[in-house]
Amino acid sequence: MNIPGVAILGCGLIGQKRSKTLAGAKLVVCADIDEKRARSLASGYPDCDAITDWRSAIYRDDVDIVIVSTTNNALVETSLAAILAGKHVLVEKPAARNVAELDSLIAATTLNKSVLVRVGFNHRYHPALLKARELVDSGELGELMFVRGRYGHGGRKGYDHEWRADPVLSGGGELIDQGVHLIDLSRWFLGDFSEIQGFAHTYFWHMPVDDNGFMLLRTAKDQTAFLHVSCSEWKNLFSLEIYGRNAKLHIEGLGGSYGVEKISFYKMLPEMGPPDTTIWEYPRGDNSWALEFAEFLEDIRLQRIPSANLQDARAALAAVEKIYKDSGYDYYA
Amino acid sequence: MNIPGVAILGCGLIGQKRSKTLAGAKLVVCADIDEKRARSLASGYPDCDAITDWRSAIYRDDVDIVIVSTTNNALVETSLAAILAGKHVLVEKPAARNVAELDSLIAATTLNKSVLVRVGFNHRYHPALLKARELVDSGELGELMFVRGRYGHGGRKGYDHEWRADPVLSGGGELIDQGVHLIDLSRWFLGDFSEIQGFAHTYFWHMPVDDNGFMLLRTAKDQTAFLHVSCSEWKNLFSLEIYGRNAKLHIEGLGGSYGVEKISFYKMLPEMGPPDTTIWEYPRGDNSWALEFAEFLEDIRLQRIPSANLQDARAALAAVEKIYKDSGYDYYA
Amino acid sequence: MNIPGVAILGCGLIGQKRSKTLAGAKLVVCADIDEKRARSLASGYPDCDAITDWRSAIYRDDVDIVIVSTTNNALVETSLAAILAGKHVLVEKPAARNVAELDSLIAATTLNKSVLVRVGFNHRYHPALLKARELVDSGELGELMFVRGRYGHGGRKGYDHEWRADPVLSGGGELIDQGVHLIDLSRWFLGDFSEIQGFAHTYFWHMPVDDNGFMLLRTAKDQTAFLHVSCSEWKNLFSLEIYGRNAKLHIEGLGGSYGVEKISFYKMLPEMGPPDTTIWEYPRGDNSWALEFAEFLEDIRLQRIPSANLQDARAALAAVEKIYKDSGYDYYA
Amino acid sequence: MNIPGVAILGCGLIGQKRSKTLAGAKLVVCADIDEKRARSLASGYPDCDAITDWRSAIYRDDVDIVIVSTTNNALVETSLAAILAGKHVLVEKPAARNVAELDSLIAATTLNKSVLVRVGFNHRYHPALLKARELVDSGELGELMFVRGRYGHGGRKGYDHEWRADPVLSGGGELIDQGVHLIDLSRWFLGDFSEIQGFAHTYFWHMPVDDNGFMLLRTAKDQTAFLHVSCSEWKNLFSLEIYGRNAKLHIEGLGGSYGVEKISFYKMLPEMGPPDTTIWEYPRGDNSWALEFAEFLEDIRLQRIPSANLQDARAALAAVEKIYKDSGYDYYA
Repeated sequence: MNIPGVAILGCGLIGQKRSKTLAGAKLVVCADIDEKRARSLASGYPDCDAITDWRSAIYRDDVDIVIVSTTNNALVETSLAAILAGKHVLVEKPAARNVAELDSLIAATTLNKSVLVRVGFNHRYHPALLKARELVDSGELGELMFVRGRYGHGGRKGYDHEWRADPVLSGGGELIDQGVHLIDLSRWFLGDFSEIQGFAHTYFWHMPVDDNGFMLLRTAKDQTAFLHVSCSEWKNLFSLEIYGRNAKLHIEGLGGSYGVEKISFYKMLPEMGPPDTTIWEYPRGDNSWALEFAEFLEDIRLQRIPSANLQDARAALAAVEKIYKDSGYDYYA
Repeated sequence: MNIPGVAILGCGLIGQKRSKTLAGAKLVVCADIDEKRARSLASGYPDCDAITDWRSAIYRDDVDIVIVSTTNNALVETSLAAILAGKHVLVEKPAARNVAELDSLIAATTLNKSVLVRVGFNHRYHPALLKARELVDSGELGELMFVRGRYGHGGRKGYDHEWRADPVLSGGGELIDQGVHLIDLSRWFLGDFSEIQGFAHTYFWHMPVDDNGFMLLRTAKDQTAFLHVSCSEWKNLFSLEIYGRNAKLHIEGLGGSYGVEKISFYKMLPEMGPPDTTIWEYPRGDNSWALEFAEFLEDIRLQRIPSANLQDARAALAAVEKIYKDSGYDYYA
Repeated sequence: MNIPGVAILGCGLIGQKRSKTLAGAKLVVCADIDEKRARSLASGYPDCDAITDWRSAIYRDDVDIVIVSTTNNALVETSLAAILAGKHVLVEKPAARNVAELDSLIAATTLNKSVLVRVGFNHRYHPALLKARELVDSGELGELMFVRGRYGHGGRKGYDHEWRADPVLSGGGELIDQGVHLIDLSRWFLGDFSEIQGFAHTYFWHMPVDDNGFMLLRTAKDQTAFLHVSCSEWKNLFSLEIYGRNAKLHIEGLGGSYGVEKISFYKMLPEMGPPDTTIWEYPRGDNSWALEFAEFLEDIRLQRIPSANLQDARAALAAVEKIYKDSGYDYYA
Repeated sequence: MNIPGVAILGCGLIGQKRSKTLAGAKLVVCADIDEKRARSLASGYPDCDAITDWRSAIYRDDVDIVIVSTTNNALVETSLAAILAGKHVLVEKPAARNVAELDSLIAATTLNKSVLVRVGFNHRYHPALLKARELVDSGELGELMFVRGRYGHGGRKGYDHEWRADPVLSGGGELIDQGVHLIDLSRWFLGDFSEIQGFAHTYFWHMPVDDNGFMLLRTAKDQTAFLHVSCSEWKNLFSLEIYGRNAKLHIEGLGGSYGVEKISFYKMLPEMGPPDTTIWEYPRGDNSWALEFAEFLEDIRLQRIPSANLQDARAALAAVEKIYKDSGYDYYA
């Protein structure tokens, strides 16, 4: 494989973002059920075709990687077909509307081991998260105790009429949207969760899906992730706090309306009292999408299982599904 | 009653703080099992006696109000005796080690209706909390949806050898200490909780009581309080966020090592998008103790049931007790 | 005059911004020596002509207001012609390259008193500045003592090859660019400056104009404006502090890369000590350009001399010119 | 010399602070014209004498180091006598009321070269300043361009009746108090100032000395220190910004009511745009007094001229004196 060819299925905001961060590869075809949208995206790239039937994209010889950035209802069908066509797939989170759907995807990957599937948990590649990963791996925090996360936005007028408000298209509300990011990040640091408690509810928006999700997740060693996601947060917020026996990390902001991304490192001294404090800020924004894609190219080069994969998506969806059921949402009937 | 006389039982840090905020009353006697501590406190006030047997304080004719600021194990015994002696009582939170103990206190108050009992939930009188109360009562937030709270400190060397680490003296750890403040504040805004979920655990300190408590409390209308308290917080923190349909309040800091106290008011506009923001800061510290005591004097003058009373303490303790049981702490065997 | 017609001379960034904030008027013609730029701007508005010779714009019958947003060297020539053609003029700051140039413009206005000229000191219409104006006018600050201002940006690669670096086009560097804003705002609050001290210097950029200006300006009553502007500030900054005998105001940020705009009001108490603090934030950005233009329409309706006019520009330029001379810059030889 | 003996002349706030930070030495005598104050300080140290006549302290055999922390009017007389008695001297800033006074002290040191004199510019030893020194010395900032400083407090009721308000005791107002710190720090980074401009004025307090000082100081290479000090600042503030060709440092806070001390390091990238940002905070307060004294002990051990000495004090006082004269204060008649 020389310069790999890429197909983008789904040319909305995420598809557009992906198209700009494909260094090392070449966008050859864009598919969207809305032809205008496909054309608009393709027009920015030389020799890039715009089509409305995604099926004709995945069988092309010049396509090596399929990026699936459709609405949630189409993630599995398209990814599955791409896998079966022998293409590597980068599917956006949550990768499916529920565990059952996702399992069909996982099953498909067992048929062709040479096909790699990465799930778009791009938050792992934000600069403050990478710094957190580095500090945790260095042992500076000691054994991890718990994680606290808050992630939310305030929606916009008519938010309850967008596709995310329709459970058939989305598979759920806030929990399956921003929630899976927080679950995945927490699990990335703490490991698998064996106890799932939580509560999802629709407080504000007139829609059948949840607008707030509260989570209390625990590993087998009783490490806790205490997480809240909301689309009635009013002031955009991203905050993740990671506590070790020796230090605390606090990641805030994701750039843009979420505020400058930064990470604070509070290091306890032997005598205790106020911690030593170092703060790194990232005012230039994140290049998480580019880093994530570059890592996928490297996965492919090395025939290496991607670090964010379908099992990670499954773990996040299992937590979401359990909480939806406990909260009386039945998206699965 | 002219100028009421006050007895302080328990001359530790809290007793000392109380002694300085008794405007409108007169401290006449201080009791502590440690005679030196009683003497030290009494010496700062004219004609104030220092004793070691608290019983001789509560029967004095010149004592109208008994402030009970002992370790938790002695709160009920002393308060009960004071009530039976016909004295008004200001008992520090949590007012008892558990619900059963507290119920004996509540029972005593039914015998003498003219005796008033206030529970020292002083956080309600912090300036940012009073401002929050005013804004919520004014209707600016609209219907309340949920509350998010984080409260913690980092302990100090040997913290696990202090009295709070001994369940016989304390009745529990972090949840019964800082936890009851967060529960009480949340309930003050949202009303009674009908669903109590949570998890208490001992992560860091070598002690038989919890050092962290995670709570997910819900009212009958599914309003949620999502609360975490910790004494392995490393950097002292107080944060309470109150969400209404139209606005958000964020209270941060309690002065001193918790940072300047402030409240941010994020008001949604009809067109949505970033909220109108006004922030009030209170750099001069709080006078919560003085306001709370002044209100108790007014309660007494008007023969009015205190706004923070034994029922409030009972509600907080019931939540704590439920979570302790669910988490495997058995302080009640 | 029904809906007034507007001509924009100079279709760069500022001209483009102006075109979007003309509520109550109608853009009828755009002029730029770069035809493509004129066309691009005009294409966004119905029935709007694009021309390269600005002269043909100012004599049109359907033009009532001429907005002059050219490079500094062309401000006077074009404004002068527009005035003589009987058109109202909104000329961007600094309105001229120096006082002598500006005086020719002022002279022209004496010939036709019905023509109004406003100078684009849009910073006066930022929400935090309007709030400051309101608080000062209300008397909350008491008599003003001094003002402290810091305003700067970090440039960009090649900044020293842009038109601002050429004194023939610009009339000077940082002092005549961001400097006149700070001078104007200070004078808006304190009144005329009778003593001008300062120092301009070129520290970083390879250009014949200053990149930093330090100012110490004083009114006849010794009220001081202590101001620094810089295009080697590295991190974009806007800060203006206004001190009265009873209170301090601190305005920070201008939105975007300058950070969220906000104003802090520090009110001294009779007992002194830490001040009462209220902060207002404006996360939705500024609409200063729209407000400024709306006020100009109102000026015209009422035949009222604009509040930001050529005399204000003259005061600012006089300070700049004095400091340039004292610092050895001779742009006037 | 084994453990050096220390005499403290002047037992006010500063003398008390010094007494607690004498590790490696022994306090043997305290002198104050107020006997009670001398006794109170001495009582905290074993075998420490309290006297009212400072002369008897400086001739004692067991005194090796004299700390002079008197009001400004007595700094020179006492230091001079101590030098002549062969004792090392740590004299608090400003070390004299004016240059002429200081020169007599400098002259005395030429008589006995083995006597070392350090001036108490303790701000150099604050953790954020030490970090700044380290970063500048490492070359990270490149050539320094300018420094911006703001330092002020809000006074307290009756401030204009304290000793600092009496020019006979103080030698001046705000400029000779907080001003010399900012001048010294700026000079520490930039080097000697050859041009001194500025303005001192009394805006608020009813006193014959200045309450505000504005400074524009320049080195021979036109590096500028742009400094303002104030005791009508209303909200306590310390801010020092240091600009190099490649980076900016911002030091804020001094602990306590000045806010947590911190230093931000803004590092320009080759592509320019928003800088890389790292922030260090020092929530545990400063140990500047202890570090400064330890360094003096080391000066003595090595017979090394102290890094903060009478020449540094002279440079600061010369700037102050020039500005006082230009501003019409004649403290020297």
